[in-house]
Amino acid sequence: MKFPVRSLANVSYNGSTGHFTLKGKKKERTLTVNTVKTFAQTLKMMALSKELIQTDDIATKREAYYVSKNWAEARFKEQPESDTVMEDVEAFFSVNREQLGFVPEEKGGDVAGRLVVIDHDRDTGEELRIDCTRFGSGAYSIPISVEDLKFETDAQFILCIETAGMFQRLVKHNYWKKANCILISLGGVPTRACRRFVRRLADSHGLPVYVFVDGDPYGYSNIYRTLKVGSGNAAHLNEYFCVPQAHLLGITPQDIIDYKLPTHPLKDVDIKRARDALKNDPFIQHYRSWQLALEQMIKMKVRAEQQALAKHGLNYVMDEYLPQKLANVGRFLP
Amino acid sequence: MKFPVRSLANVSYNGSTGHFTLKGKKKERTLTVNTVKTFAQTLKMMALSKELIQTDDIATKREAYYVSKNWAEARFKEQPESDTVMEDVEAFFSVNREQLGFVPEEKGGDVAGRLVVIDHDRDTGEELRIDCTRFGSGAYSIPISVEDLKFETDAQFILCIETAGMFQRLVKHNYWKKANCILISLGGVPTRACRRFVRRLADSHGLPVYVFVDGDPYGYSNIYRTLKVGSGNAAHLNEYFCVPQAHLLGITPQDIIDYKLPTHPLKDVDIKRARDALKNDPFIQHYRSWQLALEQMIKMKVRAEQQALAKHGLNYVMDEYLPQKLANVGRFLP
Repeated sequence: MKFPVRSLANVSYNGSTGHFTLKGKKKERTLTVNTVKTFAQTLKMMALSKELIQTDDIATKREAYYVSKNWAEARFKEQPESDTVMEDVEAFFSVNREQLGFVPEEKGGDVAGRLVVIDHDRDTGEELRIDCTRFGSGAYSIPISVEDLKFETDAQFILCIETAGMFQRLVKHNYWKKANCILISLGGVPTRACRRFVRRLADSHGLPVYVFVDGDPYGYSNIYRTLKVGSGNAAHLNEYFCVPQAHLLGITPQDIIDYKLPTHPLKDVDIKRARDALKNDPFIQHYRSWQLALEQMIKMKVRAEQQALAKHGLNYVMDEYLPQKLANVGRFLP
Repeated sequence: MKFPVRSLANVSYNGSTGHFTLKGKKKERTLTVNTVKTFAQTLKMMALSKELIQTDDIATKREAYYVSKNWAEARFKEQPESDTVMEDVEAFFSVNREQLGFVPEEKGGDVAGRLVVIDHDRDTGEELRIDCTRFGSGAYSIPISVEDLKFETDAQFILCIETAGMFQRLVKHNYWKKANCILISLGGVPTRACRRFVRRLADSHGLPVYVFVDGDPYGYSNIYRTLKVGSGNAAHLNEYFCVPQAHLLGITPQDIIDYKLPTHPLKDVDIKRARDALKNDPFIQHYRSWQLALEQMIKMKVRAEQQALAKHGLNYVMDEYLPQKLANVGRFLP
């Protein structure tokens, strides 16, 4: 069996598709006395995946590890071992592991606004139409696996929001009605399910994705960049989990000046994160405007949170900031 | 103005109501040269609350802090200052801060199963009926403030689940149909909104609440105990946020033996947490059966996760474990 090597050394940044891609390097797993256990575990993991697909079931990484406790001599001692084999299988078939029936432990992502999600009842096969305009102050919680969902929408764009508090404000005031959009709460660094949901939704209706995060290196490098181009150490997956159509609405370093926002001083860890991104991140290195933004922030020595807009009144964000920004989409950061 | 003192020294455990309650100790805030700023801030915070209620709006702690940036000399320098004043106001009026229009930053809690949540459209006043049986593999995400929600249900009980992965398994297989229940994902230590939701729902229909967590001191002392009796440093709120009707379904230390579960060794921090609970926690000290369970776990020196049941097959938890446990509700831990 030949597997692609999964490491940064076997990765390049693809400007046209907008994500990291694998170079051709492969490693081989042959059946010898030394590899017999790993070989057996790989086959067992493939068999588990086959069973999951045939029975329309799912297993988390953790559950797959525990299932192996019944594999006699082939059982895994620790979960990192089973995770590695699972990722090998995933890379071997060049699919994402949700398609193999393996799902992450963590959910994440809430949705409200102009969207109907189409799911089905597992027992009856009945189509279920989930209308995200009819949740009041609540929201639709994205499931762990989103591969089978379908969408209907007449929204103009998707607005992804970093914090639950800001999401709740926009939901409470039905902001999606006024702006004709879909609101998605990322809840910090977005989970795989959340990223995949945004990607599939954006692809299916050709929707732009605007991202509204805190104005700090964590919001840019961790939350936004993970959503847009994926992560470096899972390059074989980024094809599915990145959202190349994403753009950063704010809070930009320039917004801090333009909107006279209350700030906090950058911590050492913020400055290090920004400098690291300038030096090592192929995504940042690809875009001059991102380099300028990070350099501006390092020079200003301050950061600002989404909630800082509340200085001008609790609903300033909906009445002034978002409409003004959305009128100049071309000025968003790439 | 007289405020109740908010500290453990002013708290007692009330066996009949099932939560910590405040003793009578009060502190006074009078208008003097030294207190003029705090006094003004307290009045400003009360005025903000009044405005929130009148306009049916909300503000997170963080937003309230930023709003104060417009209070000239009365502005807060750091958020802990504004949080303290907000909690004073809350304790002063003896209400929870959601009722004052102040909401937490964090959402949390997903719901699926035999429940209709009744909310309303803020703009039109139209009643919105959210049917939690019709979410497919997704779920209803609990809003930050749940005070105005109403419920319809014919479920027999509420099943609260620690991990998103286990919740997803039960949802995926429509377990709520078979067991005639409502499934709630706690997502680790439950947020205020999630605890308040469970409490209001359980109160409104006289439903028992069964809690399914990992078999370890964190699952017992942090997740379960916070849900059931609230937390020590917010005693003036526990009346609203505790769920006295909760009982622990499992994973109990005895389950680890009875179901021959794969285990992990207890870490030093687990043992310390269990010993601390035995020594200092008035809730544990109230129940002999809890003391015996924690002592049994310390003696066994192992812990087991919810997912460990997968050793017997991925759906053993639904086909065997939960039905067997639910047939003996009287043996649940209090």
